[in-house]
Amino acid sequence: MRLANLLLGRAIPDRAAGQERIGPLAGVPVLGLDALASAAYGPEAALVLLTAAGSAAVGHVVPVTAVIVALLVVVGVSYRQTISAYPNGGGSYTVAKENLGEGVGLLAAASLAVDYLLNVAVAISAGVGALVSAVPALHRHLLPLCLALLALLTVVNLRGVREAGLAILVPTWLFVACLLGAVGLGIAHLVAAGGHPAPLVPPRRLPAAVEPLGLWLLLRAFASGCTAMTGVETVSNGVPIFREPRTREAGRTLATIVAVLVALLAGVAVLARAYGIGATDAREPGYQSVLSQLVGAVAGRGVFYGVTMGAVVAVLCLSANASFAGFPRLCRVLAQDRYLPEAFAHSNRRLVYGTGILLLAVLSGLLLAGFGGITDRLIPLFAVGAFGAFTLSQAGMVRHWKRQGGRPASLAVNAVGAAATGATLVVVAASKLLEGAWISILCVGALWALFRAVRRAYDRAEAATCDEAPLELGARRPPLVLVPVKKLDKVTRKALRFALEISPEVRAVQVLAQGYEREDLTGRWEALVAGPARAAGFAPPRLEIVRSQYRRMVAPIVDHARALAATDRERFVAVLVPELIEKRWYHYLLHSHTATALKVALLFEGGPQVLVIDAPWYLRERRRGARQPLPGDPGASRTGGKGRETAPDRPHPRYA
Amino acid sequence: MRLANLLLGRAIPDRAAGQERIGPLAGVPVLGLDALASAAYGPEAALVLLTAAGSAAVGHVVPVTAVIVALLVVVGVSYRQTISAYPNGGGSYTVAKENLGEGVGLLAAASLAVDYLLNVAVAISAGVGALVSAVPALHRHLLPLCLALLALLTVVNLRGVREAGLAILVPTWLFVACLLGAVGLGIAHLVAAGGHPAPLVPPRRLPAAVEPLGLWLLLRAFASGCTAMTGVETVSNGVPIFREPRTREAGRTLATIVAVLVALLAGVAVLARAYGIGATDAREPGYQSVLSQLVGAVAGRGVFYGVTMGAVVAVLCLSANASFAGFPRLCRVLAQDRYLPEAFAHSNRRLVYGTGILLLAVLSGLLLAGFGGITDRLIPLFAVGAFGAFTLSQAGMVRHWKRQGGRPASLAVNAVGAAATGATLVVVAASKLLEGAWISILCVGALWALFRAVRRAYDRAEAATCDEAPLELGARRPPLVLVPVKKLDKVTRKALRFALEISPEVRAVQVLAQGYEREDLTGRWEALVAGPARAAGFAPPRLEIVRSQYRRMVAPIVDHARALAATDRERFVAVLVPELIEKRWYHYLLHSHTATALKVALLFEGGPQVLVIDAPWYLRERRRGARQPLPGDPGASRTGGKGRETAPDRPHPRYA
Repeated sequence: MRLANLLLGRAIPDRAAGQERIGPLAGVPVLGLDALASAAYGPEAALVLLTAAGSAAVGHVVPVTAVIVALLVVVGVSYRQTISAYPNGGGSYTVAKENLGEGVGLLAAASLAVDYLLNVAVAISAGVGALVSAVPALHRHLLPLCLALLALLTVVNLRGVREAGLAILVPTWLFVACLLGAVGLGIAHLVAAGGHPAPLVPPRRLPAAVEPLGLWLLLRAFASGCTAMTGVETVSNGVPIFREPRTREAGRTLATIVAVLVALLAGVAVLARAYGIGATDAREPGYQSVLSQLVGAVAGRGVFYGVTMGAVVAVLCLSANASFAGFPRLCRVLAQDRYLPEAFAHSNRRLVYGTGILLLAVLSGLLLAGFGGITDRLIPLFAVGAFGAFTLSQAGMVRHWKRQGGRPASLAVNAVGAAATGATLVVVAASKLLEGAWISILCVGALWALFRAVRRAYDRAEAATCDEAPLELGARRPPLVLVPVKKLDKVTRKALRFALEISPEVRAVQVLAQGYEREDLTGRWEALVAGPARAAGFAPPRLEIVRSQYRRMVAPIVDHARALAATDRERFVAVLVPELIEKRWYHYLLHSHTATALKVALLFEGGPQVLVIDAPWYLRERRRGARQPLPGDPGASRTGGKGRETAPDRPHPRYA
Repeated sequence: MRLANLLLGRAIPDRAAGQERIGPLAGVPVLGLDALASAAYGPEAALVLLTAAGSAAVGHVVPVTAVIVALLVVVGVSYRQTISAYPNGGGSYTVAKENLGEGVGLLAAASLAVDYLLNVAVAISAGVGALVSAVPALHRHLLPLCLALLALLTVVNLRGVREAGLAILVPTWLFVACLLGAVGLGIAHLVAAGGHPAPLVPPRRLPAAVEPLGLWLLLRAFASGCTAMTGVETVSNGVPIFREPRTREAGRTLATIVAVLVALLAGVAVLARAYGIGATDAREPGYQSVLSQLVGAVAGRGVFYGVTMGAVVAVLCLSANASFAGFPRLCRVLAQDRYLPEAFAHSNRRLVYGTGILLLAVLSGLLLAGFGGITDRLIPLFAVGAFGAFTLSQAGMVRHWKRQGGRPASLAVNAVGAAATGATLVVVAASKLLEGAWISILCVGALWALFRAVRRAYDRAEAATCDEAPLELGARRPPLVLVPVKKLDKVTRKALRFALEISPEVRAVQVLAQGYEREDLTGRWEALVAGPARAAGFAPPRLEIVRSQYRRMVAPIVDHARALAATDRERFVAVLVPELIEKRWYHYLLHSHTATALKVALLFEGGPQVLVIDAPWYLRERRRGARQPLPGDPGASRTGGKGRETAPDRPHPRYA
C-alpha cells in the first residue's frame, strides 16, 4: 500500500468529492489543452497543401482559415447551447442518443472514443517528435520516450484531476500568453509598416508550385486545417467536474478556449500571408515549423523565441491530457447506461475513474507501439472520429430544437454546423481513406457492436435473475454436507465440527488413489469421529471411501456430489472443503492445490443444488499474543499449545 | 481434452500399471543410452589432450583407457551390488542416505539432479551440433533446433516409458551393432596385418606437439575420458520400472550396458593407437570426429559409414532420454521423503511422473538458451555432478559392507571405487573450476538447501496440524450466517434460502457506496424477506446497512465479519457469498469480481472463526431439457419459465 500511496496519493473519502471541482482557470488546461495545442499543427496542415501550389497560393490561407474560424465559432456556440441543455455531461453521445436514438448515440460515442484514443497517440508522438528534432541524440529512443511520457501522464491522472490541472496549468497559460503576444506583436508591426512588415529573421524561400490551385486543393486544405478543431467537444463532456454553477463555469471555459483558438488561428493566417510564410517538408533536414518561422520573423531568435518554442513542445506533449480527462468520463456515462462493464462507472481511491484511464493508457500505448511513435503515420487515422462526433452531435441539436419548437435561429446555427462538419467528415474520410482512415472507421464500427453486445449481455442476465415477489420458502430441509477428508488432522477436524453444527446429515468422503499415500480411515472412524459425535449429541457422520482409478482427486468428489444431489432434487448439497492457509505465498508451491481445484470444479460444474463451503485453517506465525480459541474446541482455549491455529495478525493491507 | 489425448495419449488406469514394465531389450535404450552415447565423446575428450603432446603421445590412449575401463567395471560391479541391496530404486541418493545420513544423501541427490539436467543439455546440443556440421545450412537455427528436440522428447516421455522405449530402440541397437561391427572388423584387420593395418581412408595427419607429455597431462586426459562413464548410475535408480524379477532384469541390463561400453572404449583405444588416429580441432573447418576417422579407416566411406554416422547422431540426440527416465524418478523418491513438493510423487494420466518431466524440460531449456546451445560451453559444467554422486554412493556402499561385516572383497571393490571416483572428482573440479564447474557446485549447494527447506516446511505444517485424539466437540452452537446482498435477485434469494436452512441466526448486510447504484432494501425487507421467512417457520433474517466512505465493497464486509466474530469467540461466522456463474468466460469481464475478491479476502484475513460459503447461481444456456428445480423453491418446479437456473449440461471436460 506504501507504493500505491506514493504513486497514487492517499485515498480520498466521498465527502471530499466537492473539493476536487474546478473553474475556468484550471478548466482551460484540463479540458481545452487538446483544442489549443491543435493551433500548433492545424494551420501548418493547411499550409502544406497550399504551399504545393506556389507562393501565390499561400495567401489563400486567410480565406481558408476564415471558413475554419467561422465553423469553429458555430461549433463553439452549438456546444455552449449543449452545455446548458445537458448540464450532467455526456456531450455528443448524450445529445445524439436523446435526440436521434440509441444506435446513433452509440455511433457518436464510438467516434468520440476513437478520437480520444488517437489524440493521446498523436499528441504524445508530436510532442516527442518536436523534442527529438530539437535534441537529435534522443532520436533513437523515440518509442521508449513516448511510452515513458504516456506512463507519466497515466500516473498523474490516476492521482486525480486537481493535481493534473496544476501540473499542466503553467505550460498551458505560458503557451497561450507567448503565442498571443507573438501574434499581437506581429499585428503591431503589420499596422506600423502599412501592410508590408520586414521580418527580423526572414522565413524560408517558398518552393516552386507543383500543383495547380483549384477548388479541390482549397477543399483539402480546409479539411486538413480542420484538425485544429479537434478537442472542442471535451468541455461539454466534462461539465460535472466544474464547481457550481457548473453550466456557467463550463460555458465560460469553452468560450475562453474558442476565443483564444480563434485569435491564434486568425493571427497566424494573417501574419503568414503578410510575411509570406509557407510550410517546409518535415521529412527533410532543416525543417522549420510554421510557428517557428512566424515567431522568428516577428520577434527574432532571442529568449522569447526559446520560451515560446519550449511551451509549444510542452503543450503538444500534454495535450494528450485532455483525453485522459474526457475518455474515462465518456466510459463512465456508457457504463452507467450499461454499454460498458460496470467497473468503468466506479471511481477509485482518488475519486477518479481509474479503469477508463488504464484502458486509455493501454490502448494508446499499443497504438504508439504499433505505429512506432511516428506522428506522420498516425495522422491519417485522426479527425475521422472527431468530425463523426461533431456531425452527430449537431444533427442531434437540430432535432432538439425541432422538438422544442420556436428557436429557428438556434436551429439554423446547428443545421449549418451539421452540414459543414458533415461535409468536412466526407472530405477527410475520402481523402485519407486508404492512408489509414479505414482503420478508424473499422474501430468505430467494432466499438459500436461491442457496446450493444455488452448491453445485451447485461439485459439477459438481468431478465434471468430478476425477481420482485416475496421470498419463497419451502418446507425446512437441512442440506446434506459432504466433507472430503485426506487425513484426520486439525484442518479436517475443524471442518467436521462446522459440518456437524449446520446439518444433521454429514458424510465424509475419502478418495484413495495410487501415489497418494493416505491411510484408509474406515477402521478408526468410529473411535475417532462417529463415537465422539454421538456422545456429544450430534448425528454421527458416515465415512465413504472412493477409489480413484486414474489418480484423480477432484473429479471423484465432484461426481459424488452430483450423484448425491440427483438422489433428492429438493435438497441442497454443501461440499465443505478444508484448506490450510500458509504463512508465506511460496509455501503454496508445496501443495497440490487440490482444494482450489475442487472449489473451482464444484463452483462451475456442481449444478444448482451444490454449494461450496471453504473452511480455512491458519498456519500463521504467532506474534503479539494473537492466539485464539476455536469454536467447538473446548480443549483449545485451555491448552493453547504448539500447533494452535492462530488468527492473522491484522487484515491484509491489500484488503484494508 | 482432445488435444491432450492427441499429445499425451489416452488416460491409463492403475490396473494397467504392470503392462508398462520393461526388460533388458527396452531397458538398455531407456536407461543406458546416456552411458552408451558417451562412447562417442569420451575417448575423443581424452585424445584431445593427448594429441596436444604430439603423435607419440597418442599411443598412451590405451593405458589411459585401460584405467577408465577398470574403473568402469568397478563402478558397474558396485552398482550391480547396489541393485540387489536396494531393489526399490533410489541409486546414489538412497545408498548415501541410508548409510551416511540425510545430509550426505541429499548431497548425492543434488549432484545427481545437476548431472541429469546437464546431460539433457549436453546431449541435445552435441546431437544438434553433429547434425548441423553435417548440414551446414541448418547452423543458424542451432538453438531453435535444440529447443524443438527438447519439446519432442518431453512429449514422448509424457506419453509414457513404453512408447519412449520403442521410439529409441532401433537407433540404439543400430548404434551398438554398427560400432561393435566396426571395432570387430578393425581388430580382424589388425590381427591379419600383424599389428600394422593399412587404413582404407587414411586418418588426418597429427599436428606437432604443443605440450610436453607428463603425469599431469595423463591425469587430465583420464579425467576428460571419464565423461564416458556418465549415466552408468541410471539403471540402479530405475529398478522399479523393470518387470519381475526386477533385480535380475535390472542387473542384466546394467551388465549389458557396461559390457558394450567396455568393448567400445577398449576397441576404440586399441584401433586409435594402431591407425594413429588423433583428435582434430572441432572449431576449425574440416573437423573430423575420432569415430568418423576410425570407421573410415576400418571400413571406408561407404553405406556402412553413412549408417554408422547416422546412428551416432541419432543416439547423441536421444541420449538425453536417459535423464527423462531418471530425473523424474529421483524427484519422486525425494518427494516421497518430502524433500520436494508432493506433486512430484504423483503419476499422471499416463502413469508417468509428469511434474518431474516438465521441470527437467524447463530447466534444461533455460540451460540450452543461456549457453546458446553450444556444447563446448556446457562441457565444463558436466561430470562434476556425476562423479559427486558416484563417490558418495561408493562411500555409502563401503559403510554398508562395514555394517554387514564379513564381505571384505565387496568392501575392497567399493573402497577402491570410492577412492578412484573421489580422486577423479577432485581432478575434474579443479581443472574446470573457473571454466564453469563453479556453476555446477553452486547449483548442487542450492538444491541441497532447497531440499532441506522443503522438508522443514512440511515438518512444521505436519506438527502444527497433527492430532491423534478423538474428535473434540463442544456444546451445540449454530453459526452466525452473514449474507452480503446487492439486490434481491434470484442469486441472492437462493443464498438466503440456504442460509435459513443451516442456522437460526442469519444476517444480511448491504454495503452502500457512491458510484454503486443500489436500492437501500431497508424499506422492503420486512415485506420481501423477514415476513415470508417468519411465515414459513424460520427465524427472520436481519438486514444491516453499511455505508462505505471509500467506495470499497470488500473491506467493509470483511471488517463486519471480523467484528461479529470478536463478539463471541465460541461461535463460527459463515459468510455466504452469492455468485452468478456466467455462460461464457468473457462474460466475466462484465463484472467487478467483488464475489471473488471477497472470498479471497475472507479466506486469508477472516480469522479462524470465519468460513466462506459459495452459493453459485447458474446462468447457462438450456439444452436437452436440463432444466432443474431448486431446493426450497416450490414455485420453481411448476412454472419453470424464462430466467430459470439451469444445471451445467455435463461436467466440464477439464474436470472430467
